Amino acid sequence: MTKATAPKTKRGLARRAKILSAAEAVMGEQGFSTASIAEITRVAETAMGTFYIYFSSKEEIFHELVLEMGRITRTMVSAAIAGAPDRLSAERAGLEAFLRFVSARPSLYRIVEEARFVDPDAYRAYFSDFGDAYAAGLREAAANGEIAQGDADVRAWALMGMAKALGDRYVLWEDTPDFDRVVDEAHAMICHGLAP
Amino acid sequence: MTKATAPKTKRGLARRAKILSAAEAVMGEQGFSTASIAEITRVAETAMGTFYIYFSSKEEIFHELVLEMGRITRTMVSAAIAGAPDRLSAERAGLEAFLRFVSARPSLYRIVEEARFVDPDAYRAYFSDFGDAYAAGLREAAANGEIAQGDADVRAWALMGMAKALGDRYVLWEDTPDFDRVVDEAHAMICHGLAP
Repeated sequence: MTKATAPKTKRGLARRAKILSAAEAVMGEQGFSTASIAEITRVAETAMGTFYIYFSSKEEIFHELVLEMGRITRTMVSAAIAGAPDRLSAERAGLEAFLRFVSARPSLYRIVEEARFVDPDAYRAYFSDFGDAYAAGLREAAANGEIAQGDADVRAWALMGMAKALGDRYVLWEDTPDFDRVVDEAHAMICHGLAP
Repeated sequence: MTKATAPKTKRGLARRAKILSAAEAVMGEQGFSTASIAEITRVAETAMGTFYIYFSSKEEIFHELVLEMGRITRTMVSAAIAGAPDRLSAERAGLEAFLRFVSARPSLYRIVEEARFVDPDAYRAYFSDFGDAYAAGLREAAANGEIAQGDADVRAWALMGMAKALGDRYVLWEDTPDFDRVVDEAHAMICHGLAP
């Protein structure tokens, strides 16, 4: 099979985006192994042959969704924290943006988690890239005195883990999450810890 | 197929344990869908028919492994924190015990994560049960003044998420994790947060 190529026309771009969006819904709902290209094209209202113009396989479109999740979370978190006056405020804004994103795109979140098994290199790259950028921000904030000194990498991974677990519990498993309450409570712990 | 029954003899118990252990290794390594009962019995050095004396299907043995992980983590964390003089010390001991457990049984850890997709009810039950017990401990500690006041459930999930992410990054992805350093840094954040 020839390698799928990037679309060159506006119509091609729109058609590719529609297939990606259908794959996000179908794979997020059914999981990678159950999801079929036939079902994805049915939901995208395109012919099966059209799928292969843009993607060479189910693995490739899955991989593309993980990359997309990476791009979106980076962009979204950057935008959310851009206006924050200091790093602790940025932590609150970033956590809230992440939880609202999980709420808006639960399928994409689930796909990234499934990548641990389906596409381990993409999974690791996703979190390593995000973790490196996160740690760089924390390192700078510690240098500026906005947060206490400490290991930026361990902190970055601990904070990513908190956000993921809160996303599972309060967003994926709850119909009407109280974002403010969850973010306030988590943020209090992020700022001051558990010590009395 | 008749429902598999619990073994009644010492020899039966040992044989069932050997099959479970083989399933942990094979499923942890290959993932649920690739792992076959043929391969599990080959590793366990038993006949295929023996598998069906104890388990009715691949799904059932997978489910049993998730339950086992639940039993082990609860027992192990309880034991680790039993001697802790206060809740903050218990947090340190529990985190270290968890990371050492991931290091000792990476396959079992991976199986629980795969349960999110393979056996979602078991996955949710595992973390809900653990989270409820964790929150109860934090609630008691806050009532005793050992930690600051705050929402015990949000804290429990945030702390579980931290432990999981640190397990991914520093145990599964690293050959020689420096447990002391990672636990010290994470514990400092758990106790005092990021505020300068």
